[in-house]
Amino acid sequence: MAETGHFAALWKRLAERLGLVVDCIDSDWRSGVDAREIGRRLAADSGHLIRAVCVVHNETSTGITSDIAAVRQAIDACNHPALLMVDTVSSIGSIDYRHDEWGVDVTIAGSQKGLMLPPGLGFNAISQKAIAASRHAKLPRAFWAWDEMLAANEKGYWPTTPSTNLLYGLAEALDILEEEGLGAVLARHVRHGEATRRAVQAWGLELLVMPESTPGQHHDAAALRRLILDRFHMSLGTGLGRLAGRVFRIGHLGYFNDLSLVGTLGGVEMGLAAAGLPHRRGGVQAAVDYLSATDPGSH
Amino acid sequence: MAETGHFAALWKRLAERLGLVVDCIDSDWRSGVDAREIGRRLAADSGHLIRAVCVVHNETSTGITSDIAAVRQAIDACNHPALLMVDTVSSIGSIDYRHDEWGVDVTIAGSQKGLMLPPGLGFNAISQKAIAASRHAKLPRAFWAWDEMLAANEKGYWPTTPSTNLLYGLAEALDILEEEGLGAVLARHVRHGEATRRAVQAWGLELLVMPESTPGQHHDAAALRRLILDRFHMSLGTGLGRLAGRVFRIGHLGYFNDLSLVGTLGGVEMGLAAAGLPHRRGGVQAAVDYLSATDPGSH
Amino acid sequence: MAETGHFAALWKRLAERLGLVVDCIDSDWRSGVDAREIGRRLAADSGHLIRAVCVVHNETSTGITSDIAAVRQAIDACNHPALLMVDTVSSIGSIDYRHDEWGVDVTIAGSQKGLMLPPGLGFNAISQKAIAASRHAKLPRAFWAWDEMLAANEKGYWPTTPSTNLLYGLAEALDILEEEGLGAVLARHVRHGEATRRAVQAWGLELLVMPESTPGQHHDAAALRRLILDRFHMSLGTGLGRLAGRVFRIGHLGYFNDLSLVGTLGGVEMGLAAAGLPHRRGGVQAAVDYLSATDPGSH
Amino acid sequence: MAETGHFAALWKRLAERLGLVVDCIDSDWRSGVDAREIGRRLAADSGHLIRAVCVVHNETSTGITSDIAAVRQAIDACNHPALLMVDTVSSIGSIDYRHDEWGVDVTIAGSQKGLMLPPGLGFNAISQKAIAASRHAKLPRAFWAWDEMLAANEKGYWPTTPSTNLLYGLAEALDILEEEGLGAVLARHVRHGEATRRAVQAWGLELLVMPESTPGQHHDAAALRRLILDRFHMSLGTGLGRLAGRVFRIGHLGYFNDLSLVGTLGGVEMGLAAAGLPHRRGGVQAAVDYLSATDPGSH
Repeated sequence: MAETGHFAALWKRLAERLGLVVDCIDSDWRSGVDAREIGRRLAADSGHLIRAVCVVHNETSTGITSDIAAVRQAIDACNHPALLMVDTVSSIGSIDYRHDEWGVDVTIAGSQKGLMLPPGLGFNAISQKAIAASRHAKLPRAFWAWDEMLAANEKGYWPTTPSTNLLYGLAEALDILEEEGLGAVLARHVRHGEATRRAVQAWGLELLVMPESTPGQHHDAAALRRLILDRFHMSLGTGLGRLAGRVFRIGHLGYFNDLSLVGTLGGVEMGLAAAGLPHRRGGVQAAVDYLSATDPGSH
Repeated sequence: MAETGHFAALWKRLAERLGLVVDCIDSDWRSGVDAREIGRRLAADSGHLIRAVCVVHNETSTGITSDIAAVRQAIDACNHPALLMVDTVSSIGSIDYRHDEWGVDVTIAGSQKGLMLPPGLGFNAISQKAIAASRHAKLPRAFWAWDEMLAANEKGYWPTTPSTNLLYGLAEALDILEEEGLGAVLARHVRHGEATRRAVQAWGLELLVMPESTPGQHHDAAALRRLILDRFHMSLGTGLGRLAGRVFRIGHLGYFNDLSLVGTLGGVEMGLAAAGLPHRRGGVQAAVDYLSATDPGSH
Repeated sequence: MAETGHFAALWKRLAERLGLVVDCIDSDWRSGVDAREIGRRLAADSGHLIRAVCVVHNETSTGITSDIAAVRQAIDACNHPALLMVDTVSSIGSIDYRHDEWGVDVTIAGSQKGLMLPPGLGFNAISQKAIAASRHAKLPRAFWAWDEMLAANEKGYWPTTPSTNLLYGLAEALDILEEEGLGAVLARHVRHGEATRRAVQAWGLELLVMPESTPGQHHDAAALRRLILDRFHMSLGTGLGRLAGRVFRIGHLGYFNDLSLVGTLGGVEMGLAAAGLPHRRGGVQAAVDYLSATDPGSH
Repeated sequence: MAETGHFAALWKRLAERLGLVVDCIDSDWRSGVDAREIGRRLAADSGHLIRAVCVVHNETSTGITSDIAAVRQAIDACNHPALLMVDTVSSIGSIDYRHDEWGVDVTIAGSQKGLMLPPGLGFNAISQKAIAASRHAKLPRAFWAWDEMLAANEKGYWPTTPSTNLLYGLAEALDILEEEGLGAVLARHVRHGEATRRAVQAWGLELLVMPESTPGQHHDAAALRRLILDRFHMSLGTGLGRLAGRVFRIGHLGYFNDLSLVGTLGGVEMGLAAAGLPHRRGGVQAAVDYLSATDPGSH
């Protein structure tokens, strides 16, 4: 496992609670997975004790995306039989992802981010290799086992009462994605990410952490988030885990367009001013300028 | 475990998939749990190998309710330390149930029946004894463990993304239940159950199974359900498990009133006629007469 | 004008408030328009002072439908130039009506009955003859004039802010009507009318008026309606105008099916019992029997 | 009447269609009503032929607000008995307005602007003097007369089927207004108006008209509006009447907050850039700076 952020850390914790032994590659939570290090560890595992390589595609807690294709190549380069498992909760429907092409064995996704639905649906995409492995797996499981689901799904049914309402929502969400076009959706998220980074740089803030007047000092991100919620009715994401209180997250994922982003960045800039935090004005304008210069309709 | 119906059977299957050894009391699916038999088996278990007694309060597949207080007494009578676990998925909010008073250790419930919500929320009510047992339990688990949930809940939070939308719905559902009054809600379900049985008897149908012209012969419940769905847009419950195709279920649970029941029974009676199945007319009227004679407003 | 009920009376009042002189054919509110009497009055109007014959197609207050084709024939028979104006508020989308075929000059309709929408949209279907007459009409008017609406409609616009939300609803309502099929919709209303009358006769009630124990005595319809609303959450229509307090109306118009009707009649029968009003039981069953015998799906 | 814009012109047209003689004060549609001119005309009307002074409080087509208190003073100054009638369709719930304090006789309002509802409800606030005048008024009318409405309203009823759904919406809208506080709502609209004007000035556009490269030349407002709708899914108001094609309107009325405004202005600035129209960048930032400097929460 590679601990690229809070949700990777939670996945590790989940595995350990199930009694699994985790070989974890640490990180400063500011960069993606190091595929070469994964390759080194697999190459050293001549006894094939490592059963799976687990990577979070996009860390919700930091917005950092890891290179899954590179991980696949690292696994293949040393001819290791480990399964490749990927968490795509915050990338599905917003960042380019290729389960089949990248040879992923188990992809995990959820309904509540790029699919624009309430939380409540989880998805597994699984390879034949993963299914075969599950047949011989020893960990006791019932709800989480795939066999009953696979059997029921063949006839269009479910082994337990499904979340019917969310399934109707899913059908609509997929229509919305198709109407915009998946390519356009993915390009929109890339473009909004860059516009947001330009705003952050214009404000003089550091990406991932709060502005520092002197090194090592941090301002109170929670107080800023509270002020922005009270004053502008906009709820920014909080810092999670080791980043608690030190960062805020500017969401631009899912049902969102250029104007939503400009309004969002306006709320951040006005919030920084209202909180009296050190920053330069002009972030919103930087984003507007970038969005204008790259308007997808102009291509 | 007592196999009183399809969902009790599924619970047994779930336990066995987790590697647990189940001592199961069989049944004809037409009567509730036999508390004396439970008492006998516990009394014979001098080594206290039995860790839990698991009972479904109301079997969704048959409508049969079991006497949980009697099970508690049977456990206490032989001073057995087994936990008492009860599935209340289709009784919560519709049939009188007392977790504390009956000394239940683990109560399981869901959002999609008497709480009048879509599927998606599960509830556990747990005794201190159950919490203590969970601390020493050996079965590997993560999502299903209680510790993280208990810790997060103390501050009003959740260890994972909660189904926020359903929680808003739950607040509304509880308001609706309080507005009618829980006592009135429970009395309504009892009264509707009796009115429905009177309709079934008036039609000359057998409770739980389809009408037989000669012993051993059954009519096709699935065909009747399909006809009623097509013609009256009413979806009756199907027979589950060993009752598949042999029964239909007349639902009167949740957001429902006297007029809904009369309309529902009208659909069944007209469906029986349209299907040409042997029955006597007059079931709807029998229910109307009973409902009139027992109108809750007349007391 | 023919005063066939409360809404015909309101129409007459409206005309008189505008300063028009109304020649009104009275009625006992229990039968439709007398086309022969209309013919007699037109024949006597050799100076063509009568400018329009105004008839309510279906009287919402009584459920009585008038024969518009017969009125047309009566007008034509004496070669009178009067316009034929028809109120179809409670017949549009539920009772067979033919603006063009019956030679109606002005048809008035609304959104809130057979079109299954909230109140808020009014419709005029107008003949070329009516448009020509409007060009020379002297009565001052602005909002009610047709010229601006006709001009704007040609380009798909409106002269004033339209009820956009209801127009979206109207598109959906028309889809719903087409899905069932207009012929099936009309047949359903005829069939439900007959089933309702059979229930009323089975109860021993008089159509249009409340049960009498001695001639001339009436029971309190308002009290019965209140009891049924309180106890069954069903709101029956009240008696209007001269029928206030003496009748109740059993609605079965619009978004409605066999089961809705059985439930509705159940509410009436249980209400009569709860109110202690003299009646025979069995009305619901009479309707169920009739609906079973005439199920549209059996043809 | 004072023709301060398109809707004032429509009101004049409506009056003329009813056969009324209108003494109209013309305007360039760029300034509010001239109360002194009204005073002059009333003073000259020694025979009291003028029955009413009609003013639009806020012209929806131009955003220009007129000084109603000044009009009242002008009427009073010459002791003229004319009624004062005011159209508040786009000011009710968004601009300070005082029917009683300003001595208005008839105030007209609608549901679809500051009350945040769909179109469909119209409101009249009327003085005793207006009611008295209506009793002797000669213009034929029925639906528009007040007597039946006043009589029915006393008992909480309506003379005709009301728009029940919108009345539920109105109750909610009033709750929303009270939650924010009417004073805060009005201050928000003033502040958003100023922020919008600062953006327009920063862009170098002329208020009310489109940018001109050479005097007398206009750019195509309709093309700009179409581009912004296509690209950003934001529908700007069009120029109406004599302003058709020459202006666009930046709406900030009703259910709206600082972030909605920043997003809206972002859409305009990006639209101007995408359309290649001459303008300076920085309008969004000018608004953000102004909003930050005047944040209501900082007082």
